[in-house]
Amino acid sequence: MKSVVYLDNSATTRPCEAAINNITFALSQEWGNPSSLHDMGFKAQMLVDNTRKTVASTLKCREDEVYFVGSGTEGNNTAIFGAAYSRQKRGKKIITTSIEHPSVLEPFKKLESEGFEVVYLKPQEDGVISVEDLKNAIDKNTVLVSMMLVNNETGAIQPVKAAAKIIKEVGAPALLHCDGVQAFGKIPINVAELGADLFTASAHKIHGPKGIGLLYIKKGVTIKPLVVGGGQEKNMRSGTESVPLIYGLKGAIESLGNINEKLKAQTELWFYAKQTLLDTGIITINSADNALPYILNVSVEGYRSETLLHFLEAEGVYVSSGSACAKGEGSYVLREMGLARNRVDSALRISFCHDNTKEDIDTLKEAIISATQKLRRSTK
Amino acid sequence: MKSVVYLDNSATTRPCEAAINNITFALSQEWGNPSSLHDMGFKAQMLVDNTRKTVASTLKCREDEVYFVGSGTEGNNTAIFGAAYSRQKRGKKIITTSIEHPSVLEPFKKLESEGFEVVYLKPQEDGVISVEDLKNAIDKNTVLVSMMLVNNETGAIQPVKAAAKIIKEVGAPALLHCDGVQAFGKIPINVAELGADLFTASAHKIHGPKGIGLLYIKKGVTIKPLVVGGGQEKNMRSGTESVPLIYGLKGAIESLGNINEKLKAQTELWFYAKQTLLDTGIITINSADNALPYILNVSVEGYRSETLLHFLEAEGVYVSSGSACAKGEGSYVLREMGLARNRVDSALRISFCHDNTKEDIDTLKEAIISATQKLRRSTK
Repeated sequence: MKSVVYLDNSATTRPCEAAINNITFALSQEWGNPSSLHDMGFKAQMLVDNTRKTVASTLKCREDEVYFVGSGTEGNNTAIFGAAYSRQKRGKKIITTSIEHPSVLEPFKKLESEGFEVVYLKPQEDGVISVEDLKNAIDKNTVLVSMMLVNNETGAIQPVKAAAKIIKEVGAPALLHCDGVQAFGKIPINVAELGADLFTASAHKIHGPKGIGLLYIKKGVTIKPLVVGGGQEKNMRSGTESVPLIYGLKGAIESLGNINEKLKAQTELWFYAKQTLLDTGIITINSADNALPYILNVSVEGYRSETLLHFLEAEGVYVSSGSACAKGEGSYVLREMGLARNRVDSALRISFCHDNTKEDIDTLKEAIISATQKLRRSTK
Repeated sequence: MKSVVYLDNSATTRPCEAAINNITFALSQEWGNPSSLHDMGFKAQMLVDNTRKTVASTLKCREDEVYFVGSGTEGNNTAIFGAAYSRQKRGKKIITTSIEHPSVLEPFKKLESEGFEVVYLKPQEDGVISVEDLKNAIDKNTVLVSMMLVNNETGAIQPVKAAAKIIKEVGAPALLHCDGVQAFGKIPINVAELGADLFTASAHKIHGPKGIGLLYIKKGVTIKPLVVGGGQEKNMRSGTESVPLIYGLKGAIESLGNINEKLKAQTELWFYAKQTLLDTGIITINSADNALPYILNVSVEGYRSETLLHFLEAEGVYVSSGSACAKGEGSYVLREMGLARNRVDSALRISFCHDNTKEDIDTLKEAIISATQKLRRSTK
């Protein structure tokens, strides 16, 4: 059997042992309903609250600022709809960027259709949003700014902290939401220093399970809930808590290790990958030089992303074309950056985790070279 | 160690082995993102679609009528908001019952605050909604009727099929939503025969995991999604699918066995429980004679539910006071049925699964007698 080189970690990651063990423990031992008044409920609630403590210490926030939701997508939806509907009496202008994840863009489109005035900030050529553009767009009617911390296709790090500063300077009544799905667990995050009022993350991007996300809501900030009912999660997200997945998230966070040290090691691997791929002479780099080194977006011009992807897959190498959430369509992120059509259509996203090695990069390089050779032969 | 008698199965159930095994398999073996274009994504999507097939065969519906959501609550929210917002141009009247689960009542209250005209049908003394009341309430402006199949506190079976007939007779443009959370897996369900356009169920009530629900949407019925983004589940519920929990649901459904045979056995246990508790001379039955025999609601008049619950817990017997989702408050379901205050305040919900035995009932009876004796002594 061919060994697998998995370089699609921004789509999802392999659940770690601690996450799986925690999930199994909750399923087989502490399967009470956290809302039950007896001790089986209490013990289940303890697993939820212990995870909340772990999340809070990672985000450097208070425990009561952490809410569990069903996915990063639900976290983004809750934050954006919740903020817009709560503040619409103070203004109807909301701002985001044109390169957000669909779970941010779609809520904005829906709000736009309901009468909100939406500004979509375009990125510069390096995939980073200009702070000046935000300054020009924001005004005293702006009630929400949503900006991701790390772009999921290019790794571009966005000026969220600067956005928080601008909101203050302008005196806009805007809440600042940050989609932190691709950043959480990869760079140290202090939500207060970041200046975000709302912050979203997801477990399955950091070797936790699919089906659980988290939403930070700054103490004192009130937003309307998206899912209503039994009043779980202090009325912010009704529905019986997925105790196993929440406790699984705790295992994943505890397995992250030293984020800074890992980032340093990953930076080295990223530069190695970049140089190795550039050396082929057939690859262009689309990620900015200062992108988060967990993502490297490249183009193999003249070869369609999807075709390449399947050739690589045949060699046991897994990457993606754009994000997993934009199945099959050309990347709007790269288009928004102003990249030429042939670069957009031939883009590959290589995304890393700590299991990846230099040998993986070498295998990737060989697989790309082999794929392009086969494709050239087949079109002769 | 005292052995545990768990009689709170309507709050949640112990995950079965097949569910746990499936979850572990998906976490450790098939952890790809279903949206990924490579075969790891494809294999993960297969687990999702195989589960969809299993659900469809249980509900006797088409596979493409089944959608996975994060909980029963999210299913109910999606159905109700989705139906109301999709049809509001045809009418603003919506009807439900006053004894629905909070995940139905809260969406209705929200819609009421947004300008919908809401009718809450009250139950009769036996906890069952009168078909005549629905007939009187419905008109050609009614766009949604939501009625649970089995009440979660009393087990009362509601006339959903009759409701479907009335909607047709009146010619109302109403969609019929049915919260089937307490019915699914316990009575045979054929959604087409039931006449529901929308039907909700949850995995953790049938020995599956917490964090996954399902929503049936009849072919041809279009409703607006609640959570938007990457377009998963045919745009009805965006967010990376919780493959492990979805596949876990498959394990739980496959472990249900013969629903009719189990119902027969459970009916016998229910009558045994009823007689055994009546024999004490201190217990009143609140459930209707023809209630679903998985739930038995009783009152031990003169003793507060919560106090009793904790005394029983000390004896290793787990029941609930009302539903797990109405933490600590007196039951609005029993109040709506017109029960006297002292019966409402002393109510216990006993809810069963197939692990329960006659010995469990005997233990429960002894525990109730012992609790009341201790409580009488302590108040002397």
